[in-house]
Amino acid sequence: MKAGRLGPGAEFDRLRAIFARMGTRGQGLGDDTALLRLGGTTLAVSMDLSLEGVHFRTTWLSFAEIGWRATAAALSDLAAEGAKPVGVLVSLGVPGGRGKGEGGRVDPGVEIMAGVAAAAKHVGAKVLGGDLARSERYIVDVCVLGTALRPVRRSGARSGDGVWVTGALGGAALALTAFRSSTVPEGALHQRFARPEPRIAAGRWLAQHGARAMIDISDGLAADAGQLAAASGIALEIELERIPCWSGVAPRDAIASGEEYELLVALPRGFGERSARAFARATGLALTPIGRCVRGTGVRLTEAGRAVAAPAGFDHFAGP
Amino acid sequence: MKAGRLGPGAEFDRLRAIFARMGTRGQGLGDDTALLRLGGTTLAVSMDLSLEGVHFRTTWLSFAEIGWRATAAALSDLAAEGAKPVGVLVSLGVPGGRGKGEGGRVDPGVEIMAGVAAAAKHVGAKVLGGDLARSERYIVDVCVLGTALRPVRRSGARSGDGVWVTGALGGAALALTAFRSSTVPEGALHQRFARPEPRIAAGRWLAQHGARAMIDISDGLAADAGQLAAASGIALEIELERIPCWSGVAPRDAIASGEEYELLVALPRGFGERSARAFARATGLALTPIGRCVRGTGVRLTEAGRAVAAPAGFDHFAGP
Repeated sequence: MKAGRLGPGAEFDRLRAIFARMGTRGQGLGDDTALLRLGGTTLAVSMDLSLEGVHFRTTWLSFAEIGWRATAAALSDLAAEGAKPVGVLVSLGVPGGRGKGEGGRVDPGVEIMAGVAAAAKHVGAKVLGGDLARSERYIVDVCVLGTALRPVRRSGARSGDGVWVTGALGGAALALTAFRSSTVPEGALHQRFARPEPRIAAGRWLAQHGARAMIDISDGLAADAGQLAAASGIALEIELERIPCWSGVAPRDAIASGEEYELLVALPRGFGERSARAFARATGLALTPIGRCVRGTGVRLTEAGRAVAAPAGFDHFAGP
Repeated sequence: MKAGRLGPGAEFDRLRAIFARMGTRGQGLGDDTALLRLGGTTLAVSMDLSLEGVHFRTTWLSFAEIGWRATAAALSDLAAEGAKPVGVLVSLGVPGGRGKGEGGRVDPGVEIMAGVAAAAKHVGAKVLGGDLARSERYIVDVCVLGTALRPVRRSGARSGDGVWVTGALGGAALALTAFRSSTVPEGALHQRFARPEPRIAAGRWLAQHGARAMIDISDGLAADAGQLAAASGIALEIELERIPCWSGVAPRDAIASGEEYELLVALPRGFGERSARAFARATGLALTPIGRCVRGTGVRLTEAGRAVAAPAGFDHFAGP
């Protein structure tokens, strides 16, 4: 279950109640990815529900981009597990009377599936099947299947581990701001939002090089750091000035930016700049040290060595 | 992909276009269940999307029943594959402001998940995870995972095979009629609609005893027989007077009744009444011979040896 989607507070309580009812109490908030041992293989499975008006708008993205983005969001969970994607299934809800492709126009359902297939192919996975229904608004629910030789959970971080992040953060928030002011973001920024790349190769490399705990940044670094800290039973100290930011984005905005699909990872103390350079050579991505794991609970932000308050809305993650 | 959900005609064309775009042209309409070879195991995966107002109404069923029913629908696909369910994932869409459980009332999301968990437990599967989002109307998208020692597809029926069906048909239509006239069906009929039992044990038994092709009856026997015939490249002759009907239901209504979740199966000529009795002893269910596979295309209905027209709306399945 994805806890972050609904934000802190009452909705979390509801999620916890659901988990308790299912008999999974005591396993924490749970990883986004479920693991299943089958024969000699560990299967990693995750689902990601994208809804029109909640997760996307048809005026901001093409239907192919909507399909790509929904699939990338689900694949990003596999990336955080260090898993290799194998297959994708999609449940598609399509309105009956909207844009049905008369007169040579594109068919939205077909375009969404083309985007799903492109995102799957990009990481070597196949579209295996799914379901299709008429609905009032577009629904794209993607289930991804992968295999994990050495699965990485959220719960493995230990006091003394370093905290690292892939890529640069804040592009998604910047693109959203542009869309909301009726501007279409251009070039790399548009690509970042419309066709995010799940960090599959990065996640697998990190899993093979000692990653203790990993999570993808779908709810913003501050929120997801809180999830990792809670699952691992430790606190995360993060230095704001170290956050790798998208051009034109301040660190405080970068750590609140959701749907970034970068990876936040805890690595043992021995993993240093030299290892980060090896990572960059292997994946083409930056890997930046932003803090460390310490005893305690929650996320502690510092700026120039001084404690600073978390961005509004993230107090929930400061621990009980 | 489930073709039947959208009915015949333009919607089927759209589905076919989606399949073509995904590069699966030539595989027919596809089975509801995808198969994935993993190590020494064959994984069977299926998704089933249930939408408020389309597949269920909150005034007809309790939230726990909505969860059970959505899960049973997905599990029914595994049953038709002869697979053993292992795990269930659920994407849940829950409205923000409706029935949030204030003042001691039940929480709909929690109740739905309780129904999901009960249906999963009933067949020995676990709830592994899923996703949760706020939505305007309730959404329950269930993904089921299972293992299949000898998967049974829709496409294996051969001319000369016998055609059989489990249980009795028409109860779902009868219950729907009652609900639509604002009557609450009682006893076994209510149970049949609200808590349908996926035929897991039956599907596994049939897979182990030579089933050549199998499909669950989710769109009505006439429609699903058409799917099996098309996938196998044969015709199905079905004798109306042999259809096992729910008490008070006529054969013509029974073969149009959807969401029955019984199994339609092609078995080799040598499978006879004696084998059917062995099936009944093993599963507690009836297995009734209703026709045979012959050369040709589509579904041919007979009554007292004479050809009769298919029920309205199913002409599409009579073959090209």
